[in-house]
Amino acid sequence: MNNSTSYKSMTIEVINKIAHIQLNRADKFNTMNLDFWQEFPKVIHDINNKAAARVIVISSTGKHFCAGMDLSVFTQKKQDKNIEIARKHEELRRSVLQLQACFNILENARIPVLMAIQGGCIGGAVDMVSAADCRYCTSDAFFSIEETKLGMTADLGTLQRLPKLISMGLVKELAYTGRRMSAQEAKEAGLVNNVYDDQESMLSAVMEIATEIAARSPLAVSGCKEMINYARDHSVADSLNYMSVWQSGMFQPQNDMMETFTAKTEKRAPEFEELTQIDNSKIF
Amino acid sequence: MNNSTSYKSMTIEVINKIAHIQLNRADKFNTMNLDFWQEFPKVIHDINNKAAARVIVISSTGKHFCAGMDLSVFTQKKQDKNIEIARKHEELRRSVLQLQACFNILENARIPVLMAIQGGCIGGAVDMVSAADCRYCTSDAFFSIEETKLGMTADLGTLQRLPKLISMGLVKELAYTGRRMSAQEAKEAGLVNNVYDDQESMLSAVMEIATEIAARSPLAVSGCKEMINYARDHSVADSLNYMSVWQSGMFQPQNDMMETFTAKTEKRAPEFEELTQIDNSKIF
Amino acid sequence: MNNSTSYKSMTIEVINKIAHIQLNRADKFNTMNLDFWQEFPKVIHDINNKAAARVIVISSTGKHFCAGMDLSVFTQKKQDKNIEIARKHEELRRSVLQLQACFNILENARIPVLMAIQGGCIGGAVDMVSAADCRYCTSDAFFSIEETKLGMTADLGTLQRLPKLISMGLVKELAYTGRRMSAQEAKEAGLVNNVYDDQESMLSAVMEIATEIAARSPLAVSGCKEMINYARDHSVADSLNYMSVWQSGMFQPQNDMMETFTAKTEKRAPEFEELTQIDNSKIF
Amino acid sequence: MNNSTSYKSMTIEVINKIAHIQLNRADKFNTMNLDFWQEFPKVIHDINNKAAARVIVISSTGKHFCAGMDLSVFTQKKQDKNIEIARKHEELRRSVLQLQACFNILENARIPVLMAIQGGCIGGAVDMVSAADCRYCTSDAFFSIEETKLGMTADLGTLQRLPKLISMGLVKELAYTGRRMSAQEAKEAGLVNNVYDDQESMLSAVMEIATEIAARSPLAVSGCKEMINYARDHSVADSLNYMSVWQSGMFQPQNDMMETFTAKTEKRAPEFEELTQIDNSKIF
Amino acid sequence: MNNSTSYKSMTIEVINKIAHIQLNRADKFNTMNLDFWQEFPKVIHDINNKAAARVIVISSTGKHFCAGMDLSVFTQKKQDKNIEIARKHEELRRSVLQLQACFNILENARIPVLMAIQGGCIGGAVDMVSAADCRYCTSDAFFSIEETKLGMTADLGTLQRLPKLISMGLVKELAYTGRRMSAQEAKEAGLVNNVYDDQESMLSAVMEIATEIAARSPLAVSGCKEMINYARDHSVADSLNYMSVWQSGMFQPQNDMMETFTAKTEKRAPEFEELTQIDNSKIF
Amino acid sequence: MNNSTSYKSMTIEVINKIAHIQLNRADKFNTMNLDFWQEFPKVIHDINNKAAARVIVISSTGKHFCAGMDLSVFTQKKQDKNIEIARKHEELRRSVLQLQACFNILENARIPVLMAIQGGCIGGAVDMVSAADCRYCTSDAFFSIEETKLGMTADLGTLQRLPKLISMGLVKELAYTGRRMSAQEAKEAGLVNNVYDDQESMLSAVMEIATEIAARSPLAVSGCKEMINYARDHSVADSLNYMSVWQSGMFQPQNDMMETFTAKTEKRAPEFEELTQIDNSKIF
Repeated sequence: MNNSTSYKSMTIEVINKIAHIQLNRADKFNTMNLDFWQEFPKVIHDINNKAAARVIVISSTGKHFCAGMDLSVFTQKKQDKNIEIARKHEELRRSVLQLQACFNILENARIPVLMAIQGGCIGGAVDMVSAADCRYCTSDAFFSIEETKLGMTADLGTLQRLPKLISMGLVKELAYTGRRMSAQEAKEAGLVNNVYDDQESMLSAVMEIATEIAARSPLAVSGCKEMINYARDHSVADSLNYMSVWQSGMFQPQNDMMETFTAKTEKRAPEFEELTQIDNSKIF
Repeated sequence: MNNSTSYKSMTIEVINKIAHIQLNRADKFNTMNLDFWQEFPKVIHDINNKAAARVIVISSTGKHFCAGMDLSVFTQKKQDKNIEIARKHEELRRSVLQLQACFNILENARIPVLMAIQGGCIGGAVDMVSAADCRYCTSDAFFSIEETKLGMTADLGTLQRLPKLISMGLVKELAYTGRRMSAQEAKEAGLVNNVYDDQESMLSAVMEIATEIAARSPLAVSGCKEMINYARDHSVADSLNYMSVWQSGMFQPQNDMMETFTAKTEKRAPEFEELTQIDNSKIF
Repeated sequence: MNNSTSYKSMTIEVINKIAHIQLNRADKFNTMNLDFWQEFPKVIHDINNKAAARVIVISSTGKHFCAGMDLSVFTQKKQDKNIEIARKHEELRRSVLQLQACFNILENARIPVLMAIQGGCIGGAVDMVSAADCRYCTSDAFFSIEETKLGMTADLGTLQRLPKLISMGLVKELAYTGRRMSAQEAKEAGLVNNVYDDQESMLSAVMEIATEIAARSPLAVSGCKEMINYARDHSVADSLNYMSVWQSGMFQPQNDMMETFTAKTEKRAPEFEELTQIDNSKIF
Repeated sequence: MNNSTSYKSMTIEVINKIAHIQLNRADKFNTMNLDFWQEFPKVIHDINNKAAARVIVISSTGKHFCAGMDLSVFTQKKQDKNIEIARKHEELRRSVLQLQACFNILENARIPVLMAIQGGCIGGAVDMVSAADCRYCTSDAFFSIEETKLGMTADLGTLQRLPKLISMGLVKELAYTGRRMSAQEAKEAGLVNNVYDDQESMLSAVMEIATEIAARSPLAVSGCKEMINYARDHSVADSLNYMSVWQSGMFQPQNDMMETFTAKTEKRAPEFEELTQIDNSKIF
Repeated sequence: MNNSTSYKSMTIEVINKIAHIQLNRADKFNTMNLDFWQEFPKVIHDINNKAAARVIVISSTGKHFCAGMDLSVFTQKKQDKNIEIARKHEELRRSVLQLQACFNILENARIPVLMAIQGGCIGGAVDMVSAADCRYCTSDAFFSIEETKLGMTADLGTLQRLPKLISMGLVKELAYTGRRMSAQEAKEAGLVNNVYDDQESMLSAVMEIATEIAARSPLAVSGCKEMINYARDHSVADSLNYMSVWQSGMFQPQNDMMETFTAKTEKRAPEFEELTQIDNSKIF
Repeated sequence: MNNSTSYKSMTIEVINKIAHIQLNRADKFNTMNLDFWQEFPKVIHDINNKAAARVIVISSTGKHFCAGMDLSVFTQKKQDKNIEIARKHEELRRSVLQLQACFNILENARIPVLMAIQGGCIGGAVDMVSAADCRYCTSDAFFSIEETKLGMTADLGTLQRLPKLISMGLVKELAYTGRRMSAQEAKEAGLVNNVYDDQESMLSAVMEIATEIAARSPLAVSGCKEMINYARDHSVADSLNYMSVWQSGMFQPQNDMMETFTAKTEKRAPEFEELTQIDNSKIF
């Protein structure tokens, strides 16, 4: 992974252990076209597996963050009229799972993913940001579960993850009506951690947070992500037990913790080893 | 179901695909008497099964929304002194399940249920509104888990559903002390979606939201409700899978979705078919 | 248990059915040393089992509530260099479970535990207050998941319980960066129920809440705690059923409930029997 | 409920606290026609709610126990060609749930249900017997998940309950191929508790078991059923806790248990009070 | 722990890393009296914590393994007539949990527990053996869920654990009727691993199995127990993930595994380090 | 995929919609070397995604089915001595998950997988066959959880899946001791569906079963697999609901079911359309 790589639907830049992905189809409101669906999971996967960065920031360009699914995706889909209908349904199920997987990858990555959202965050974009770890937005941002207005039920994660992020009563109103939720409302509801005046100040602030994260032990941070995600889906008793087993292998105080003590004494920033690379093409 | 029907404990009016149920025993603070317990589940059940409306609004009359269980219910209960005590307990358990079922029906209905709450929402009324999809209230509304003050533990859903709607720390304070939570506090905690100056402006706003919902595809809305309720009780992984299977049968883009496109082109509101009626008296 | 007992790391006073525990090592920022770990679970256990109070308030002394683990705990731990490494890991797991259990005891106690927090609540202190029922703090209070800054993953409950108390997106930012969360932010997020100007006004207010709780039927309050904790970790359907079975044994309207009616008629405060004592040294 | 009642698809006889239901359409292989689907749940429901018996035995007539769904059910179903396809699917889902509910009622009944199976137990009949508590069969009995041979997936409980009754590897072979499982194989696999030479000896033996059950405290037996069903679907920890709460209300040693001691002393059979009747038409 | 210690209700002998516990009140059919309930958990706890053995064998003396609860336990229980009834129920719940805990300790121990059962295994004894890892019996052994015959529901684990060990249909028949299950039936059902002619040959065979277990790496065996118990109560996906985290700390191939290779080369039995002792009186 | 393809560690032949995979390193006891780990998941994945067959049969060659992990895998693993130890553990966890995934693929495939096992099935081979749908073996077959004898805990699925296939008490004895389980014992325990005299008769019989499966509607069979696997990991209530949603899309009686009726009338075998191919390289 070069420090800066250009894809069709996004640009990636890795600086100071921070990977910055920017959606770059501003003239199309950064809708998710076929390029996006092919590039996005691959990019996240590579950064994660190569331990190329310690944190990912995803932002966008233009007036709106992302207007959701690009309708060309539907029209480009080859239609085979002759497939028996139940088999078409089975195929549709697989397609939904496949698209969901493109966002699950944010949750399954070993490193945090921060979303910096300006303007509209619509339809599939809500599915995407729901799967990230932390969300930040500009004061003119808004969120819309647009799918209901298009006569369908959102199916890529919004209805599964939002109820674990904000009040269910609010999620329902948003989903049933398809109305826009403002930045302020999103902050009060707990969907975004902070609201900023404009994209410049937002990016500056988010990069500062990312810099903080990148300065920490990547293993300690990775453990936090694993534990918090696990806690969402399990009882507290199960989660505490999981933590105890995790620590048995991952807590080696003589290394990362000792480094923080030594660094403090030596009045310098602690330095931590990266996580090891994952090479799925090999078993080991 | 006529467009307007009167029951002993409530009135029902169905206009523009919105069913408006109003508690009408204002002089008794709309307490839940035997009439209520018999009429309420039947009314919701009928609207739901007959697809008589696309959304239900429940409001009340007088100074207070509802003061909870009417004490006459206890006194009217026939006491059979001679029943062995463990069997009485088994019977009590069945009674609790039976009363709980009267509110579960709000959750299990295929269509959204909105609550418009003025004044006091007390005891059993909190159990009821917790089981609805969205809550709205007037600025003079207040909520009270009154049961603790009566020496008992609330048993019809409040303690089961509130912790999934608002901060557990707050639920506990409210439950332990029985103190009143104000409208403002309820808004900040996420229990109600919005607070209005008075009942008139509240009803007007809630009807507007209901109108929005009634304008959407009833199947898309029903899917949202099913998914959000499912997400509350399952892991994200299970919920995503469930969504994929749901879509395999319920997502037929050539119908509802295409109608929204066509309607937009033709500059008219889209028109959607109702859900089919359910007739429990017949197998098919 | 005397009305006022002094331990090395805390003082305990039981007045008017309220047990007030105060951390008393202000000069050491009330860090959790070996004394604390041995005394704390014993104290809570005794109050709970002896039904010595109806509610526990935990506060602290000095500028800061608690600065987390005392580092002496690590250095005092006997190091046996010769233990095989996997067995050391098994032992580490058991140690983590053992420390977690010291805070689980707050959750498992039959009576509510209220936390009154001034100044810094850091590291292990966040694990502790997360396990309490309700949290209150002064306006100068702050919360910090300090462990990440020390190169390790918090392992005593913070990452397991906080995501069930406040927005997951915020928990993640706090955990990844280790930054301080202010009192105001904690209030808005729902971590604390209320913020007070200073410790005096906080203690006064918290004692008032505790007094309210102590005036209620201890069995009704205990049922609330059991139900709310259960609801956190189970589906609504399971929780409702659990409630119905609980009531079959614990709801005896002719006693506590009737007492509230009688007391009202007689214009006096109702009087409730204590829960029975638990004696673990005996089977019965 | 009279002691002997005749329905179109079955006969019911209640003797000595045993309700004996017999499928009586032997000339049609006792297939499940519309009469069956309407009568069966009503019959079980009535026996259970009226505490009319302490145990239910279901047997059949003719050469085969039951050949599953009567095809007339499909053809009698009114076809409304004009319903939008996704709404038809929603309707189909509701029909499946409705049919499943007819067998769930066996599981939810407070009293045990024993199945005495002769000859073929095919398709929907396997769904039905899987939902009972205990199964017994004649040596010429066989079981067949016939649905796969008809090009569909069994959907009324077989695939959900059989894997909790017998080896999953065997369930899969049976489901994939649709082949017949013999009585002997069913016994070895644990599906049936015992195999008998012919229907007469089977009925005689099953009635003896039923008589034993009817001689026990109906509350103790009901508790066993509730606990074993609960255990199937929950962790052991959850189940043990559930048991402890159940006992708090249902274990009153001074009554049923004392009666067994007294009866023993007095050399007579103990006599136990029936469970109370449930009247769903009334709240209390 | 001495190599041979005598308690009032049992004897303990630790030889060759095998702890052999024998119930020694043969004249009283080894019923569980107060001595038993106090000694049993303490004995298991000590062996486990002190790593005093690598496997526990529990057998009995006389004609019958154990006839369950000694009725003296009930009569010795102090009766306080004046306790309010709901509080008595709360107390009863705690008693049940306390007794259950005495058998949970078998499941939670780090080392395997084998049961060698002769003659009758009745009532509470079935609760006990269900909580062990493996069961073996003599050909004259029988098992009886006696509680139903005494008018109560078994409450110490039988109904929670048996359905995860043998066919639910059989468990139900046994629980509903209280009839005896023979050794042969227990073997076929999978409750016991093997049946032996008499106690002598059984003990000889079980000790051989125990010797095999004691020859293995205690950490590898402990991992097996943890994983199999975990699998019972979790999904396969959760269990696989748990395994992966467990191995991260507990799989150190350079030690135990390498020792097996070396030992093989050197034609000797491998030697493994014991698990570390657990001292609950200290935090570390 | 050609009808017959040769890989380094196995051969594949697809005839009559049956894919037959044979391990072909008989001289090495078909141990799982790097070739195996790379080829196996790819082969299953391809058959599944390309809908190249309706059922997979996996058998082996030589005296033994498979002796588990090839030790060369460990030695070939590059050792980087300088990696910090906690990071090595994180890497180890990922390796375990990666290897587990190679067998999970059997469970996740849309089509059944049958195992035909001769001689020894040892260590990793038990993990593999546990993940298949059905198991068959020769009379000289035996199964061994060999890992315990090598000083480690089996970590690729055996301890997670076996307790859901056979008696937990037996799994524990096998895992703790590492002893061999004979074909007969495996049959009685329910691990294998049938035992055959020799490999020839076994393969002949298994191919007959596979032929039966291949003659069924592949969608109906796929639904069975999905439902049975789902039932293993969920409550019956959840599983029944899942089934109802599945049917809403997958049950189209006018196609596969009607074909079976028509074929019967026309006295021919029914013909069913294949499942659609899955192309993961494309979104649609």
